[in-house]
Amino acid sequence: MQETMPEPTGATFFEQIAHRQKAQKTRLCVGLDPDLTRIPEVCKSSDRPIFEFNKAIIDATHDLASCFKPQIAHYASEAAEDQLQETIDYIHGKGVPVLLDAKRGDVGSTAEMYARELFERYGADAVTVNPYLGKDSLEPYLDYADRGVFVLCRTSNPGGSDLQNLTLDSGETLYEHVARTARDEWNSNNNVGLVVGATRPEELRRIRNICGDMTFLLPGVGAQGADVKEMMGAGQGGGMLISSSRAILYAGSGEDFADEARSVALETRDEINRYSN
Amino acid sequence: MQETMPEPTGATFFEQIAHRQKAQKTRLCVGLDPDLTRIPEVCKSSDRPIFEFNKAIIDATHDLASCFKPQIAHYASEAAEDQLQETIDYIHGKGVPVLLDAKRGDVGSTAEMYARELFERYGADAVTVNPYLGKDSLEPYLDYADRGVFVLCRTSNPGGSDLQNLTLDSGETLYEHVARTARDEWNSNNNVGLVVGATRPEELRRIRNICGDMTFLLPGVGAQGADVKEMMGAGQGGGMLISSSRAILYAGSGEDFADEARSVALETRDEINRYSN
Repeated sequence: MQETMPEPTGATFFEQIAHRQKAQKTRLCVGLDPDLTRIPEVCKSSDRPIFEFNKAIIDATHDLASCFKPQIAHYASEAAEDQLQETIDYIHGKGVPVLLDAKRGDVGSTAEMYARELFERYGADAVTVNPYLGKDSLEPYLDYADRGVFVLCRTSNPGGSDLQNLTLDSGETLYEHVARTARDEWNSNNNVGLVVGATRPEELRRIRNICGDMTFLLPGVGAQGADVKEMMGAGQGGGMLISSSRAILYAGSGEDFADEARSVALETRDEINRYSN
Repeated sequence: MQETMPEPTGATFFEQIAHRQKAQKTRLCVGLDPDLTRIPEVCKSSDRPIFEFNKAIIDATHDLASCFKPQIAHYASEAAEDQLQETIDYIHGKGVPVLLDAKRGDVGSTAEMYARELFERYGADAVTVNPYLGKDSLEPYLDYADRGVFVLCRTSNPGGSDLQNLTLDSGETLYEHVARTARDEWNSNNNVGLVVGATRPEELRRIRNICGDMTFLLPGVGAQGADVKEMMGAGQGGGMLISSSRAILYAGSGEDFADEARSVALETRDEINRYSN
């Protein structure tokens, strides 16, 4: 296996990502959503089954990953904050940045507490946040200028259209308004990205047209079935982190599960690269 | 101090609240937002300072509280999940329901994990959630028919208007759309409430007109300076849980801080009752 190149010290999240995309030739973000009902039997004998599972996945895929993305609910539901911390520290030991997927959104004074949780307690390099409470709810994250802040814009779930696709009296949709506001009002530290579902290339293209070269986190490849070629065509012109979780994590269930995970991660990375400019 | 009457076993969250509002004559929700930089010196010598502080506040105010509302970021930022659990268990020991303020919002499969965190791990009787990801992101909470699910509608922070007050092509605002959708599409288990800032009576009145007798969680009294008389006039016609946190928690900083907290809670409860129908 190719060794991961360490990123330069003191680099911002987006600089680290740019470095890794060049050095490791990958835009793949490996989601770490451990589910105790799905992880292989071989991990379950440990008293830290979540960390053991993650460690095997990280060992098998870190050179293919632009970053890892643990989703915090999968740890909190199991009272496994300690295993989340171990996971993040282990990823950092491999020289890979961590995007902690938490989708927080609260008023300013409470948002400061969440920012401390995610950036200082856990040491995340980037996070996801929800824009429904507006600018002062985002500022405590944005103030960490070296970290990445991915604002939910257009999500890939069925209910994503319920609010996000509403048309405003200006003629634009709510998700387009969020994209434009992220560009014009929230990005003064150049540390904003957007979460855009990979399953809707037409909407991805509209958001790319609004946001220039801003980096998008694109979930929906793998288990959710996004078409990689269409996605890459629609998203070109700026940074893309393409996230896959379940298709990689649960590629196998036997003792060789980590090898199976690596195979799927490799295929996914290569398919993405096939359509990269 | 008057003893708290236990609510009937097996009651839903909203039944418990209705019972307490009648038995204890209070609509006050006491927010538990412990901040280690602000809690009294006398609590800081404990190895569980957050719990010791909360315990004193709960002992001093439980008969005045319709429910308690811990805000989860204040615990997560200090890696104090254990003290949050102790706090919730202690409140339940007093026979008082717990509204866990977490404002989660994520896609369906992850929302299931968050619902497990809040309702099963912590045993919350009610939660707050964010509507930006639409119906399937709310369903895992709504499926717990005996719990309360408060959907963010119109928040009291400065950025609350950034998205929530946008006008749609239908002529209604986004927050009105959320209120109407909560009424028509999300409330089939009769367990939905709305979060509506207490500082904007005109908007509160509009939301009341849309939602009939639905229960609202109203933050903004106390430190945020809402006018109680105006709020009670605008919100009448349905359930109201009026939340105050900092004004009660940090009423005093000496050894008698809990007595000071009780005084402010009592004043707040009585002021609310003065304008209740």
